[in-house]
Amino acid sequence: MTEQKLKELLADMTLEEKVNQMSQVVGAFFNKDMDITAMGPMADKGFTPENVALSGSVLGTMGAETLKKIQKDFVEQHPHHIPMLFMLDVINGFKTIFPIPLGQGATFEPELSEKCAAVAAKEAAVSGLHVTFAPMTDLVRDARWGRVMESTGEDPYLNSLFCAGMVRGFQGDDLKEPYKIASCVKHFAGYGAPTAGRDYNTVELSEHTFRDFYLPSYKAGIDAGAAMVMTSFNTVNGVPATGNKKLMRGILRNEMGFNGVLISDWAAIEEIIYHGYCADREEAAVRSAEAGVDIDMMTGIYCENLCRLVREGKLSEDLIDESCMRILELKNKLGLFENAYKDADETKEKEVILCKEHRDLAREAARKSFVLLKNEEKILPLGKEKKIAWVGPYVHSRNLMGSWSFIGDAKDVTNLEEAVKAQADTTNMSFHAGSPMLGSDIRLEGFGEAMEQSHTPEEEEAMLLEAVNAAKEADVVVLAIGEDRLQSGEATSNANIRIPEIQQRLLERVSKVNENVVVVLFNGRPLDLRDVVSKAKAVLEVWMPGTEGANAIADVVFGAYAPSGKLTMSFPYSVGQVPVHYNEYSTGRPHVPGKDKDRFRSKYLDIPNAPLFPFGYGLGYTSFEISDVTLDKTELGLENEIKASVTVKNTGDTAGTETVQLYIHDVAASVVRPVKELKDFRKVTLQPGEEQKVEFTINEKELRFLTENERVESENGVFEVFIGSDSTTENKAEFVLKK
Amino acid sequence: MTEQKLKELLADMTLEEKVNQMSQVVGAFFNKDMDITAMGPMADKGFTPENVALSGSVLGTMGAETLKKIQKDFVEQHPHHIPMLFMLDVINGFKTIFPIPLGQGATFEPELSEKCAAVAAKEAAVSGLHVTFAPMTDLVRDARWGRVMESTGEDPYLNSLFCAGMVRGFQGDDLKEPYKIASCVKHFAGYGAPTAGRDYNTVELSEHTFRDFYLPSYKAGIDAGAAMVMTSFNTVNGVPATGNKKLMRGILRNEMGFNGVLISDWAAIEEIIYHGYCADREEAAVRSAEAGVDIDMMTGIYCENLCRLVREGKLSEDLIDESCMRILELKNKLGLFENAYKDADETKEKEVILCKEHRDLAREAARKSFVLLKNEEKILPLGKEKKIAWVGPYVHSRNLMGSWSFIGDAKDVTNLEEAVKAQADTTNMSFHAGSPMLGSDIRLEGFGEAMEQSHTPEEEEAMLLEAVNAAKEADVVVLAIGEDRLQSGEATSNANIRIPEIQQRLLERVSKVNENVVVVLFNGRPLDLRDVVSKAKAVLEVWMPGTEGANAIADVVFGAYAPSGKLTMSFPYSVGQVPVHYNEYSTGRPHVPGKDKDRFRSKYLDIPNAPLFPFGYGLGYTSFEISDVTLDKTELGLENEIKASVTVKNTGDTAGTETVQLYIHDVAASVVRPVKELKDFRKVTLQPGEEQKVEFTINEKELRFLTENERVESENGVFEVFIGSDSTTENKAEFVLKK
Repeated sequence: MTEQKLKELLADMTLEEKVNQMSQVVGAFFNKDMDITAMGPMADKGFTPENVALSGSVLGTMGAETLKKIQKDFVEQHPHHIPMLFMLDVINGFKTIFPIPLGQGATFEPELSEKCAAVAAKEAAVSGLHVTFAPMTDLVRDARWGRVMESTGEDPYLNSLFCAGMVRGFQGDDLKEPYKIASCVKHFAGYGAPTAGRDYNTVELSEHTFRDFYLPSYKAGIDAGAAMVMTSFNTVNGVPATGNKKLMRGILRNEMGFNGVLISDWAAIEEIIYHGYCADREEAAVRSAEAGVDIDMMTGIYCENLCRLVREGKLSEDLIDESCMRILELKNKLGLFENAYKDADETKEKEVILCKEHRDLAREAARKSFVLLKNEEKILPLGKEKKIAWVGPYVHSRNLMGSWSFIGDAKDVTNLEEAVKAQADTTNMSFHAGSPMLGSDIRLEGFGEAMEQSHTPEEEEAMLLEAVNAAKEADVVVLAIGEDRLQSGEATSNANIRIPEIQQRLLERVSKVNENVVVVLFNGRPLDLRDVVSKAKAVLEVWMPGTEGANAIADVVFGAYAPSGKLTMSFPYSVGQVPVHYNEYSTGRPHVPGKDKDRFRSKYLDIPNAPLFPFGYGLGYTSFEISDVTLDKTELGLENEIKASVTVKNTGDTAGTETVQLYIHDVAASVVRPVKELKDFRKVTLQPGEEQKVEFTINEKELRFLTENERVESENGVFEVFIGSDSTTENKAEFVLKK
Repeated sequence: MTEQKLKELLADMTLEEKVNQMSQVVGAFFNKDMDITAMGPMADKGFTPENVALSGSVLGTMGAETLKKIQKDFVEQHPHHIPMLFMLDVINGFKTIFPIPLGQGATFEPELSEKCAAVAAKEAAVSGLHVTFAPMTDLVRDARWGRVMESTGEDPYLNSLFCAGMVRGFQGDDLKEPYKIASCVKHFAGYGAPTAGRDYNTVELSEHTFRDFYLPSYKAGIDAGAAMVMTSFNTVNGVPATGNKKLMRGILRNEMGFNGVLISDWAAIEEIIYHGYCADREEAAVRSAEAGVDIDMMTGIYCENLCRLVREGKLSEDLIDESCMRILELKNKLGLFENAYKDADETKEKEVILCKEHRDLAREAARKSFVLLKNEEKILPLGKEKKIAWVGPYVHSRNLMGSWSFIGDAKDVTNLEEAVKAQADTTNMSFHAGSPMLGSDIRLEGFGEAMEQSHTPEEEEAMLLEAVNAAKEADVVVLAIGEDRLQSGEATSNANIRIPEIQQRLLERVSKVNENVVVVLFNGRPLDLRDVVSKAKAVLEVWMPGTEGANAIADVVFGAYAPSGKLTMSFPYSVGQVPVHYNEYSTGRPHVPGKDKDRFRSKYLDIPNAPLFPFGYGLGYTSFEISDVTLDKTELGLENEIKASVTVKNTGDTAGTETVQLYIHDVAASVVRPVKELKDFRKVTLQPGEEQKVEFTINEKELRFLTENERVESENGVFEVFIGSDSTTENKAEFVLKK
């Protein structure tokens, strides 16, 4: 449809029609007989049958056949035959589930996540969907917050690359193209920094930190063309994001140039009342509309109030037109006015979903996401001839998909026992649960599923004994343990960040009878791993690895694939250290090596300042040497660039991949800068003995930040360039910026 | 001296003289022969003998005789005979030590702290001092930060009252009056919110929170006439406070109207270089001078650079004149131009210091600071006839003064055994250390003193056994345990906030053989007390109670005085919950009673949201009933006020004191408001059966906050008024503000 036709359409629509474009309902409204009537549970939200019949979008239904039928009936009865948008949370995959985003971050391969997103989009598109609520690009620093699993970590640069990559993966170059769906960057803004790690809690950030650390990756998603943005639940400088005009009009629209559709998070318009920001639903409607929130997700507040407010002169109809037009434009970009079903196709669903190509990609992504945290005596990889006891609740679990992959089906997931059996003669091996996933100490209230896993103390002891006996007989115990998949994700804040007590007991008992323990760790957040690390010779971090996760684990454990992942979120020493992140600002009393006994330093008395495992950290099966940093010049200006290089050598006896990381430190600036900032990285794969020069270029643009002048610009002075294998590297050179 | 004369003096001074007024040196420069030469350790800071001979102030020396001699010699040789200011940290007392500020907060009696400050000023003044670096009024929310002991807590209103009270106590109405010293409000601004509780770490606060919560108490101190303000070590919105012109010129001087002397914290001017805010010492000098920092504490940066910078035209001499004039004015206010020694008096020192009146006040303050956290079966107070085993490292310790009372002398402190023996026939009682203060798990590096306390495992076991045996024989065990006094205070951040492990073991062993355990808890910060509370029938929080602390404890334990203190900082459930405070902002998904099983709420899966002991909490020996809240009207305007009242009744069988607390909740506002804010309180003492009406007035002024318009004003709408015995009260009424 031409822009002109869209305008004519808008002009022809009634106020009710326009306002209802701004309202989102759930699929449950459209029952199987397609009788468009408001159903019980939604009626008290303020929806009427008329609203449903004019609705702009639907959340949470899928399936080509279902959606085509809903759309067909809907369009026919709609006065202007405007199709609905079908939206859903397609995060780390649709049916083929990839590693959780935090695991994808560890690949340091945004282009891989782009491919994963494209696959997810394809599966979702043929199932009739038009929009996914992804990527979540909230910067995260606090492991107590369970939703860190849906982020790619603590670095603004890396998050930006991943966010842009995922947006491109979902959307491609043109939303009209087959198998492309619209991407919704979330949660704008700062949702990843709730106070005390408690989900939905107040966010306290200085303006500078907010802009320099938190905003860049949303911007990257917008620059990559994201069609939509979602508001966050938190306040930004005291005002809930969803009603925050300065944030949404000022920063998102004007500064960042976003002109797509802004949708509230689930019921967030209503929740600004609970925040104490609005006295009632009418005020909530006004504030949100004025902030420019185009779609009200899951409340009837817009439906209930906007028409009346316009008629009473309390709200300008221009605001309605503006929002409605953005929604119509998105529908037009998706080609829905020409083909309301887009890619929905029952035949393609069967061909495409979980096809070999998709599963292969899932396996590749999983393997690359694993982070080898420890490998004493090179215990890994394991020879297939070894007498191995595979122990732990994750030996048989198919719930490897993470908490926010509810479309994925456990039955499609290979479990670890099956994966091992597919790769090795298991005559000498044995497989044991060892313990339930969770003991009685964990309250997963309202989660249903997880609560059913309770066992009697006698059952627990029997499981444990079986495992201990097997461990006694084995050469090596592979302990597949970790968090329940529902322990991380939204609304899963934890004050203790250790594996469940019942599994700690399993670890303790098993490690007492066998000194060769390899832990394969499943989790959605950084954990306090002191105890795990001290009791295991090797620890392989596998996150929630997805549909093909178990096969990928077998690949890595047996050495068919060497691990290469690097952490993108610091693993704290203990919960008393959070929030902890590598890119902290310099303090005036830094705790420096050799000054351990200085009293007045920024440190703890009882634990180190350093996390247990830092950002960028991860081992492989071989070893690398990185040479001193060489710069081709030591003065940078506006017109030139510096080439910074190192030589990387594989000094071990197997092939392997190293992620060479470049960090910058702006030594003195008008606003205090981080001690290190990741600015570039390169993954290099080398054969034993092979070496390769890795060259990075540094230009003035990369050195910009929000200065005291409130402008994003660089400042003359000395810069340090660090190149190494993780964020603790001290391998550095200096240059001067002189503009 | 008249203002005119001061101006003439300034005009007559050389640039060197003026700049040296802005520099502070340590007393060590003035050796006993009064040879004014820079000594070794200070030379590398950039001081020359000429600087010392022109110095404006001295830090860290005391004693009437010494200071008089230093001053005499100094004034005689100074070209303009300008006396020096003698400054020192006089925090919770000079020689007579009062409870630490966090304990003083628990009295809910700012007027008592005013008296304590007046006593401290008197003792300091006769010892020759002119300025104290107190009060510290930094708002605190994170128990990991050891310096919470020097604050009065988490409430801006209460902190404001205490800050103003202490300023008045130190200064009186006129600094020229006998026994008055200048007060220095610190640390401007926001020092109490270091990220992850790590001292000197970055502070992240939104502008609104910074202004509404953190700034008010500094302002209260300034309004009370504080002669000085100290800069803080942290950054404010990315810029170190000490070089932060927006903060110091914009907020402190212009908005708050402070025209006194601004001093850097210890070496803070140098540390803005380590922050990466300045490239070198020259730039640090420029930034700090431009920010309006009048005195450079403990670095030679001003001395080294300012004269040259002025001569080179890089800095305006007006800035020097402005700062120098402020310093001269302070000297003039203190009357030093007329009497350079002020109150320094060797005879008075002997009369005044630690006199009975001062000790009595210290005892009163200590008793009132104690907070009874638990008292099962009314086990407290104890009858003196009871067979009591007094156990714990605090039975014999005299280190009851807190970490920042280095002038106080342990030999002047009564210990608990002596205090008990002074009040009771102890034939049936016994006294045992039970354990060393600290085990090997605590690193107090650089603290000297504390490290000497190490014992062999055999010695530890012998101490423990003696205590356990005594506990077996006793009716009741009073366990005097807690943190070492050096575990809290500056640079004592802890990731674990429990009593030392070695004392936990003592608690465990003793509680196994005697079920009547009363814990008397010494500490400088809120601790995770779950274990203590579960093993003890009573827990009496006594903080670091000062010179007369032990006598006060005996008073309370035996019932001569009933405890009445209330917490002014939440005691977290565990360290995974921090920062936690009662006056948090409303979230959009509040965790509400009855909704425990709702999944998508702002809560933890593994611990409650509520702290173990909330703000305002504290038991007594009797019980009180507080009636429903009555309002005399339900509409408030600009011209009237609301009377909110309750009737308080002593329903127990002994006299007691209740602190009735009034909280306000602004239900809906243009900026999200706290769920509760303390606005008033009243301490009432009632005999058994007695009741009293307690009436508060509420006016529009109290309802003001920083609105979205960036103005401090009130907004129309509904307000809730809560009146109760702690911050969790749900006893409430509503009114409407209609201006």
